[in-house]
Amino acid sequence: MKQWIYGRNTIRELITNHKNIYELVFLKGNRNDDLMELAKKNNIKYRVTDNRQFSEKAGKGNHQGVMALIDGYDYTPLEDILSSIPKGKQPLLVMLDGLEDPHNLGAILRTCDATEVDGVIIGKNRSVGLTPTVAKVSTGAIDYVPVAQVTNLSRTLDKLKKEGYWAVACENEKAQDYREVDYNMPTVLVIGSEGYGISQNVKKHCDMNVILPMAGHVTSLNASVACAVLLYQVYHSRHPL
Amino acid sequence: MKQWIYGRNTIRELITNHKNIYELVFLKGNRNDDLMELAKKNNIKYRVTDNRQFSEKAGKGNHQGVMALIDGYDYTPLEDILSSIPKGKQPLLVMLDGLEDPHNLGAILRTCDATEVDGVIIGKNRSVGLTPTVAKVSTGAIDYVPVAQVTNLSRTLDKLKKEGYWAVACENEKAQDYREVDYNMPTVLVIGSEGYGISQNVKKHCDMNVILPMAGHVTSLNASVACAVLLYQVYHSRHPL
Repeated sequence: MKQWIYGRNTIRELITNHKNIYELVFLKGNRNDDLMELAKKNNIKYRVTDNRQFSEKAGKGNHQGVMALIDGYDYTPLEDILSSIPKGKQPLLVMLDGLEDPHNLGAILRTCDATEVDGVIIGKNRSVGLTPTVAKVSTGAIDYVPVAQVTNLSRTLDKLKKEGYWAVACENEKAQDYREVDYNMPTVLVIGSEGYGISQNVKKHCDMNVILPMAGHVTSLNASVACAVLLYQVYHSRHPL
Repeated sequence: MKQWIYGRNTIRELITNHKNIYELVFLKGNRNDDLMELAKKNNIKYRVTDNRQFSEKAGKGNHQGVMALIDGYDYTPLEDILSSIPKGKQPLLVMLDGLEDPHNLGAILRTCDATEVDGVIIGKNRSVGLTPTVAKVSTGAIDYVPVAQVTNLSRTLDKLKKEGYWAVACENEKAQDYREVDYNMPTVLVIGSEGYGISQNVKKHCDMNVILPMAGHVTSLNASVACAVLLYQVYHSRHPL
């Protein structure tokens, strides 16, 4: 299915990676001259529309004045992910709250494939979706790890908790060392965005916070790095030596 | 101290990040028209030289026909790194063999700062060095984790082994599960490049190989992800719960 994709970096990647672009639309008066140049150079036609026409498709999200219609990577409905987890397997999901960097999402999909993650959940707003860069960085994992896109992460957590999942947040506040938890339970691991961590509303719906010890000067780790260390700890809980 | 930096991606990053460029030199007849365009647009002067003049400065490395003179990030001599490790601390070094992606090096520096790594060792050839992108991705860790650039990684490993270090390679061949090793020993962790892993010559100088379990379809993890999982295992060995 075709889908609209927004944002300067995303569109630049689409053009640079020679992805099929069916329509390319700029918002009038936005500072995207460089992207128009790039489109011209790559023989991609575009049009410039006014605010009313643009918002009809782009909504009020952070579109940065540019959108493109492309072949979408397929998302999987969360219900399908849940129902396809083999009986007897301890379920493991990863929820990404506002992740923006396609390199991080790609690397996370790769780690998820390696650590028996059943599916990844991302929000519809602000988050990076399944873009060509994500596909590339995932080195193929994008074809094996199903990704669900949901409207409301908090409500999704509530639903999962009703089905017996424990929501474990990677979050500094009132956290315990990540090694203290036994992950032999249906787990949804919640990872925040690069700049802002987990949003307040999502935080409230988590059952426990875990933290990685950090001995130095920096106060946080790369999102895909933190996610990987946690996923391998879950793996260790479930497959001890 | 000023330094020459090579390669298309590196130079593109320098220009895009508005880093001071003192000299920009292209090799005649190379396919770098796009970079020359970019330089022009950013009002950066450049010159085009013949092969003899170019090789004088660039050597025979994979320079891709372009080099720039910039303010360098400072490397630290390996001797200084070794001598500044506090007495009583179990030494921990990370050697990166041919890492090419600045995002990976930046993320690794960030993890190193968090996990009590005393220094990072990189080779002079083919590897990404301390570029503006590395600095940016490291979120400041570049100022805290000393990086040594050495001519010969194998010889450096030999030297370290004579001083009591154990060289642990992240490498599939004849490997044991990374959780089986007790890292309470002076350790140099060796990580290979994104595309090619650890080079044959360096492999031969390692004492043991460790592997991360991978349950899925992809056959390797992102370099910064693998490095982080291993470094947190070292941390766990040294600071158990």
